Amino acid sequence: MIPTKTYAALDPKKPLTAFTIQRRKPGKNDVHIKILFCGICHTDIHQARNEWGHSIFPMVPGHEIVGQVVAAGASVKKFKKGDYVGVGCMVDSCGTCKDCKDHVEQFCNTVSYTYNSQDPKTKEVTYGGYADSIVVNQKFVLRVSKTAKLAAVAPLLCAGITTYSPLKKWKVQPGQKVGVVGLGGLGHMAVKIAKAMKAHVVVFTTSNNKSADAKRLGAKEVIISNNANEMAKHALSFDFILDTVAASHDIDQYLNLLKRDGTMCLVGVPNAPHPAVNPGNLVLKRRQLVGSLIGGIKETQEMLDFCAKHKIVSDIETIPINYINTAYERMLKSDVKYRFVIDMQTI
Amino acid sequence: MIPTKTYAALDPKKPLTAFTIQRRKPGKNDVHIKILFCGICHTDIHQARNEWGHSIFPMVPGHEIVGQVVAAGASVKKFKKGDYVGVGCMVDSCGTCKDCKDHVEQFCNTVSYTYNSQDPKTKEVTYGGYADSIVVNQKFVLRVSKTAKLAAVAPLLCAGITTYSPLKKWKVQPGQKVGVVGLGGLGHMAVKIAKAMKAHVVVFTTSNNKSADAKRLGAKEVIISNNANEMAKHALSFDFILDTVAASHDIDQYLNLLKRDGTMCLVGVPNAPHPAVNPGNLVLKRRQLVGSLIGGIKETQEMLDFCAKHKIVSDIETIPINYINTAYERMLKSDVKYRFVIDMQTI
Repeated sequence: MIPTKTYAALDPKKPLTAFTIQRRKPGKNDVHIKILFCGICHTDIHQARNEWGHSIFPMVPGHEIVGQVVAAGASVKKFKKGDYVGVGCMVDSCGTCKDCKDHVEQFCNTVSYTYNSQDPKTKEVTYGGYADSIVVNQKFVLRVSKTAKLAAVAPLLCAGITTYSPLKKWKVQPGQKVGVVGLGGLGHMAVKIAKAMKAHVVVFTTSNNKSADAKRLGAKEVIISNNANEMAKHALSFDFILDTVAASHDIDQYLNLLKRDGTMCLVGVPNAPHPAVNPGNLVLKRRQLVGSLIGGIKETQEMLDFCAKHKIVSDIETIPINYINTAYERMLKSDVKYRFVIDMQTI
Repeated sequence: MIPTKTYAALDPKKPLTAFTIQRRKPGKNDVHIKILFCGICHTDIHQARNEWGHSIFPMVPGHEIVGQVVAAGASVKKFKKGDYVGVGCMVDSCGTCKDCKDHVEQFCNTVSYTYNSQDPKTKEVTYGGYADSIVVNQKFVLRVSKTAKLAAVAPLLCAGITTYSPLKKWKVQPGQKVGVVGLGGLGHMAVKIAKAMKAHVVVFTTSNNKSADAKRLGAKEVIISNNANEMAKHALSFDFILDTVAASHDIDQYLNLLKRDGTMCLVGVPNAPHPAVNPGNLVLKRRQLVGSLIGGIKETQEMLDFCAKHKIVSDIETIPINYINTAYERMLKSDVKYRFVIDMQTI
């Protein structure tokens, strides 16, 4: 076993704290990775505080990992010592079911998430990226381009793929009018990626003071979503709307803005459901309300390559690991532009 | 003008009654059609009773029309005297907008429905198929094969296309498991059409006594939808579910039965919305909740040809026109298998 320094939640009520875990000794298909940076996703807070009710403690959160290969197992062909690599939300899956064969491992019934997953047989629990190293099967390791902004690549592993995947799945085309609801960790990535896909990007926000920033990130227009007159002007004009807001809110006001055959995609699961949707808004213009969950490993690599080509990274604030609990509090107040990333040298 | 015998609603509160209207003299692009049969759609009741609040009286309902050409205008090439033809929910549209160019005239902003539509300029109102004849622009006239069951073809013009169109749009494939919610006028057509598309058809119904009939119509399985255990057995197994029920009901119980990437399509617009959908049911399996509205003219012809090829007609009860008010009352009690069709010889 490999003793590994981490920051862990030992209890849902207590702040995260320094904690040592044991990683498995790398097998022939494993890659041992020195973690350089790890992004902080809102999911980390939900899980560390057991807000979804299935947390296992102690827990080491973190699934936006960028690092460097320390050692590669005998059967690992794709990676060698010194390579820059990434690990996202998943570290294993069955590999044989239809979901795995279709390269959408996130839907596999026995997918292992990067943290807080328990092997039904061995009872072994996964520990995430708030750690100095990680051991991952090569199938779930991604290639990352060496860049001066390596820290800012980390959030692509979750926020990037979560927004890239639906834009691809529902075939967003150059020139299409694409709305992004919410300008946070996910939303700001959606703006950058949709812009790189040559869409006409429009940001919906309730905060007037996010306008300038939305445009800096690549939005052509910003709509204040609680201004009904402004919303009405855009009726029937959107090809696709990506809704990144995980709190309960009115969906109909966005459905009405879609063209005939337009699609609105949810990527967040709020604790309370959104108010009931008017079926007429779907039927009378043949619209689609859909959902999307992160993305498969093959598509995550495609996204990383796309982002490297288009020089897309996340807007981040780099923090030392001992700032983690303060970072959580600031995230709850949306006080971050747009993602915290832990510099793992500080562990 | 052409004096035309009809049955009309003169007032939302009164029974329909014999009434004479004037049809326009056929122009060079018009087809003058002697109506042989007209199906009764639930929409007819809503409109005749002004339940949607935009009825124009006197009103002649009816948009499931089958008849024979009496005369064709000078520019009409596709039809000649004696041809069997059909007219569905629409009789005109702008012809120049994107919807019209995309052959989905039902979404055109200035579409003229077969009845209860008013021309914004001329103020002329359209009168439907409870009549001995109708005059329709050739673009909105469909070819119908001569068959002994001509009366049973009439419901294809609305119930047929409303169910055929979403099955095609979301690409139902042979062998796929397709659910049909509700076994009424629309539902029974959906079963026949999906079966002809070689799908494995499953009917959801709340009435145990519809089981045998559902199987006779082509369903391989019948699920009693208020039996939670029976529903649970089919979790994650459907490729597509077509929901034909226009009353408010729980959508989540059906979403849960869809596979990853499965689609549920609504074709009814209830007066009260369905209860709020759990966004997790969309996100966690990348499912789609969509709506569909009748179908375009080109697709309606395709549907009629498909049904002729597969010998699909509606299950009907033929009635004389003076039975119309009784028929309405029976429809409100779902006491019809599965569509009333008026024999227009009786007018």
